[in-house]
Amino acid sequence: MGKKYKTTYQIPFYESDINQNVKLPHILSVALQVSGMQSLELGMSDEKIFKDYHLVWVITDYEIEIERLPRYAETVTIETEALSYNRYFCYRSFAIYSQEGQKIMTILSTFVLLDYDSRKVHEVVEAIIRPYASEKIKKINRGPKYHKLADPQETLYHVRYFDLDLNGHVNNSRYIEWMYDVLELDFLKTHIPRKISLKYVKEVHHGKDVLSRLEQSGLTTRHEIVSQGQLNAQASIEWRRL
Amino acid sequence: MGKKYKTTYQIPFYESDINQNVKLPHILSVALQVSGMQSLELGMSDEKIFKDYHLVWVITDYEIEIERLPRYAETVTIETEALSYNRYFCYRSFAIYSQEGQKIMTILSTFVLLDYDSRKVHEVVEAIIRPYASEKIKKINRGPKYHKLADPQETLYHVRYFDLDLNGHVNNSRYIEWMYDVLELDFLKTHIPRKISLKYVKEVHHGKDVLSRLEQSGLTTRHEIVSQGQLNAQASIEWRRL
Repeated sequence: MGKKYKTTYQIPFYESDINQNVKLPHILSVALQVSGMQSLELGMSDEKIFKDYHLVWVITDYEIEIERLPRYAETVTIETEALSYNRYFCYRSFAIYSQEGQKIMTILSTFVLLDYDSRKVHEVVEAIIRPYASEKIKKINRGPKYHKLADPQETLYHVRYFDLDLNGHVNNSRYIEWMYDVLELDFLKTHIPRKISLKYVKEVHHGKDVLSRLEQSGLTTRHEIVSQGQLNAQASIEWRRL
Repeated sequence: MGKKYKTTYQIPFYESDINQNVKLPHILSVALQVSGMQSLELGMSDEKIFKDYHLVWVITDYEIEIERLPRYAETVTIETEALSYNRYFCYRSFAIYSQEGQKIMTILSTFVLLDYDSRKVHEVVEAIIRPYASEKIKKINRGPKYHKLADPQETLYHVRYFDLDLNGHVNNSRYIEWMYDVLELDFLKTHIPRKISLKYVKEVHHGKDVLSRLEQSGLTTRHEIVSQGQLNAQASIEWRRL
């Protein structure tokens, strides 16, 4: 068990959806920000590891369980813990607690250190990981197996200027926007995710078109984001009726 | 001179652009949130006027001057003042101060009260406006005259699910995203706005396609957002080289 860090956050109007819940991509961005705040507090900020090692933290996998989503104007508590790491992968959890103190979301995430120039995964650097006091393990958490979609429905999206973050890459949250957007509005008005598995495979760059692929079977949707024949991300979402 | 309200805000990673500045649509959303915080403090929250009057505040015009944009991780102070009002229009200013206390942005905005059901502008209600102690004036601030674009370049956008806010309408900030996105990436990497005039004419609804129209002449760009032959918004932006 590694070090924990927590902070509170109030859901703003402009990040609330038609059901008065937080927009999912937004709460994931905020969670990521919270892990950055822990790094800063431990003296191992993103700026420092970029300056000292030319490395950046990148998320490769999410496993998300949702009891309910934080609501508009609700002040939630977000707690994160650096759980464990092996040669290449670092595992971190997030728990989101309602205003009344009940756990409503858990997020398990896998981080890797990416070499900023080569864009290749770098081995975990002991000096970077030490302050988090997380457990060194041998086991690799493989996550779920994603099967290639056989006969998906496809929708085309163009990467937009504001999709880019300050690294000049498409922000992680946009992939989820493309996945959501191919679903019917009536479905999104009446369902929320119960469980999400999401894997980032390869970055999307500016000026590229992407296809958001969908297979829907009852309350399960399966997604692929693809550009120029290359798989960028894949996901599986289990929904429940509101 | 009406009542003032101020708060601080730190620019998050995921709302910072490739130049390490805040994304403009985001800081406008945050400013709007700050005016909502003032309303709450004065006992006249958005929820209350919706419940008591079935009215909602809507922005119709912005006049924005930018010395520089807030930077990634900078903690800025946002101060707002309810300046004055006449029969239909309420005028409100925002000033954004840098971490060092220097004024770096000013935003003049025009608000109206919209009847939620009919979507028609309602006269200002004295009981709603009283707590702000703003000045009653006769004068209508007409703002700049926008000339219809004669021969614009056009780009098609489809309204996406996450463009909608909890009212089920396209959030104001998205219009600016469509306006920005038609500009060349190289231009956006090397220029920031100095002065922006923006007028919201008519709401865009889900499922609609919009055209983002552009005329560019040196360091001035002129914009229209149009759907189904109907003008939704127009803007003029003066840029300066970074």
